[in-house]
Amino acid sequence: MTTLQPINIIGAGLAGSLMSVYMAQKGYPVNIYERRSDPRTKGYLGGRSINLALSVRGMYALQETGMLDEVMEFAIPMYGRMLHDTEGQLTFQAYSRNKEECIYSVSRGKLNIALMNLAESMPEVNYYFDHRCDEIDLASGKLHMTDTVSGKEFTVEQKASLACDGAFSAVRYAMQKTPRFDYSQEYLAYGYKELTIPPGPNGEFQMEREALHIWPRGNYMMIALPNPDGSFTCTLFFPYEGEKSFAALDTDERIMAFFEAEFGDAVPLIPNLLEEYHQNPTSSLVTIRCYPWTLEDKVALIGDASHAIVPFFGQGMNAAFEDCAVMSECIDAYAPDWHTVFDTYQKLRKENADAIADMALENFIEMRDTVADEEFLFRKKVEFMLGRTFEQYKSRYELVSFSRIPYAEAYQRGVTNLEILKELTVGATSLEDINLEKAEALIQAHIG
Amino acid sequence: MTTLQPINIIGAGLAGSLMSVYMAQKGYPVNIYERRSDPRTKGYLGGRSINLALSVRGMYALQETGMLDEVMEFAIPMYGRMLHDTEGQLTFQAYSRNKEECIYSVSRGKLNIALMNLAESMPEVNYYFDHRCDEIDLASGKLHMTDTVSGKEFTVEQKASLACDGAFSAVRYAMQKTPRFDYSQEYLAYGYKELTIPPGPNGEFQMEREALHIWPRGNYMMIALPNPDGSFTCTLFFPYEGEKSFAALDTDERIMAFFEAEFGDAVPLIPNLLEEYHQNPTSSLVTIRCYPWTLEDKVALIGDASHAIVPFFGQGMNAAFEDCAVMSECIDAYAPDWHTVFDTYQKLRKENADAIADMALENFIEMRDTVADEEFLFRKKVEFMLGRTFEQYKSRYELVSFSRIPYAEAYQRGVTNLEILKELTVGATSLEDINLEKAEALIQAHIG
Repeated sequence: MTTLQPINIIGAGLAGSLMSVYMAQKGYPVNIYERRSDPRTKGYLGGRSINLALSVRGMYALQETGMLDEVMEFAIPMYGRMLHDTEGQLTFQAYSRNKEECIYSVSRGKLNIALMNLAESMPEVNYYFDHRCDEIDLASGKLHMTDTVSGKEFTVEQKASLACDGAFSAVRYAMQKTPRFDYSQEYLAYGYKELTIPPGPNGEFQMEREALHIWPRGNYMMIALPNPDGSFTCTLFFPYEGEKSFAALDTDERIMAFFEAEFGDAVPLIPNLLEEYHQNPTSSLVTIRCYPWTLEDKVALIGDASHAIVPFFGQGMNAAFEDCAVMSECIDAYAPDWHTVFDTYQKLRKENADAIADMALENFIEMRDTVADEEFLFRKKVEFMLGRTFEQYKSRYELVSFSRIPYAEAYQRGVTNLEILKELTVGATSLEDINLEKAEALIQAHIG
Repeated sequence: MTTLQPINIIGAGLAGSLMSVYMAQKGYPVNIYERRSDPRTKGYLGGRSINLALSVRGMYALQETGMLDEVMEFAIPMYGRMLHDTEGQLTFQAYSRNKEECIYSVSRGKLNIALMNLAESMPEVNYYFDHRCDEIDLASGKLHMTDTVSGKEFTVEQKASLACDGAFSAVRYAMQKTPRFDYSQEYLAYGYKELTIPPGPNGEFQMEREALHIWPRGNYMMIALPNPDGSFTCTLFFPYEGEKSFAALDTDERIMAFFEAEFGDAVPLIPNLLEEYHQNPTSSLVTIRCYPWTLEDKVALIGDASHAIVPFFGQGMNAAFEDCAVMSECIDAYAPDWHTVFDTYQKLRKENADAIADMALENFIEMRDTVADEEFLFRKKVEFMLGRTFEQYKSRYELVSFSRIPYAEAYQRGVTNLEILKELTVGATSLEDINLEKAEALIQAHIG
């Protein structure tokens, strides 16, 4: 029996914890370093969104690592968008023609802890909490670490390292100063703030449980996702500056007047609105891109460290988990040639990460503007009809959320879909005006 | 008489040294910190291109600070491009209809030292060489410095600071980690390498002296600029990878065969070609963009620190000097309200920096592809004719190099010019086919 080399994982968030399970299941000794304290003893300090949308790509990786059943126990299916207008009128838009195709609301903290519990139960995995990676010496691959409890500094000599240290990755900051490293961080002019709709008096959900709720209002919006305890977590996505903005809501009166006018049906459901509005942080929304993601046989960036995206397609965690699954395949194919493992991984993932970053930005416009654009709504209706009528027609949303075809391919299919829809809807004002023979011919020609 | 507060300048390169002169002339005490040694005693270690193209924007700032006459003594005018084909045939393309409109080849080292000498002669200015800025504490504006000779570390308590510390600015790296700071660094897939054509046996120039020489070869090129000693500095801009690339020229035979085939007329003039090819570094080409450029009343980024660009429009130094001139105007208008000084400066400069960054990237394509595209060459001819015929018609090159209209406006005028040229050249194959009445009408309508 050969002894496999130990692997360093930096960051015990979602990607790092899942990756540690993948590695341990292959038999690698894993040392996983996390700068925060153990969330199971000290409480979960994410500083990030409370719940996440899990879909097929993430579920695939959880299935591979044997985690899916456990996660499904606290996951709530969401079958579509429930749109709330300013009068409180509701419109439901299903995500798919197939009733079983849905996305799941899961708690970030619960999911992370479930992954940690599994990883820590494996003899190969050693967790080091309160351990900060200060720097990576890219010439040698050595990690400079600080145990933030004892203050002790030490060096990890062993490569290879998998950097799962998030959007503000210390490893990536070091790589940024290496020759010919392309990098960008771009912030939206929007921030987000979380608010809570608690369960009703008998623990019941106070709105439709199995939907992602959206209050689309043109250039901003609020959404809400269900939690297993009967509550919903609302998130307001709102400009930092301008006439209607975080900056403009500078008194309690203005905050309440704004919420009453725009999200009137939600206000009675958010009892601590003002308190939460003042206490909860306004968080920023960033897209981070870089390349290369790896350095020789020394280090690879995984998840947000390599491609932080905005949350509007619900794909941040799913994309990170797909990274882990692809890395796992590359290891099976090429380890212990880590240079080839890492290079194959980054070449497989880069264009797909760029594609989901672009789609996430585009989806913000779709979500917040949904009610405003008649043409868009009509095209959605036609698209839904095409999906029901022609098996091979799938919307971009379905391809991203309910399939594992590469994101870059889903992006291209979205472009093709739009061309087909534009051609079919010329001069049409209702579904009866759509020529289904022409639709079939177009789908046959462009999708096959 | 009021006492003005001391100002910190970080970096004593071209922008930092010029800015120190501007500040001292306004009466501000200036402490200027440079991590390198004094180039006047230790030799100039630029690690950057040897000569630069100086044009109207840079000259304006030198004029304002009283430096222009001294610089002109070692500047060599270049009136146009001298194109070299593979057979050694020469074609001259003038930069302007006006004989007096030219750009100047100047030595980076000489220019920097001339600026340092002037600054140091002023009682307000204190130079600190071998002083590295390790970090800026953005909450307080304090600078953490190391005297690299003594090893002593100390803190500069005083704001305001002007960060002229170049493309790899330590100050900007600190700002990058602040909330909502947009940042990108993008490398070309090309590197550059410098080679030397020495003076002839009697100190004479071995090619036309008053031109910028170009060997355009499709997807790569070599250029040469004259130096006062009779030499030329050649720069090869060449892909890192691929069939014809730095990577592919892996033996002396391949290097010589490539130069003989592509730059045959230059080879006899570069006696130490192989030696220089091996010894001189292959340098990278980066575009850096960021925003904001300033933080409250604490710090402002100037020059390459805020907008490093590729060298193909010869505007890197000119843009940096224009930053200094604009900062000077903002100080005259708003100091000691440094918050307003800095905010006005960044709002005036950002779109112009983006425009010259884009134009510099586009000009690479123009320079390296010049000979290949018949349509492009014909349009150039028509453009030159329009310039001679209509006073108000100016090419984008003229607007960038021979005027001080904002870069963003020059960019837009370039778009307008192209529309006019496209319309005029439809179906035309020679200058006789161009309808001058139509030209006049188009110019009147679009430029006025």
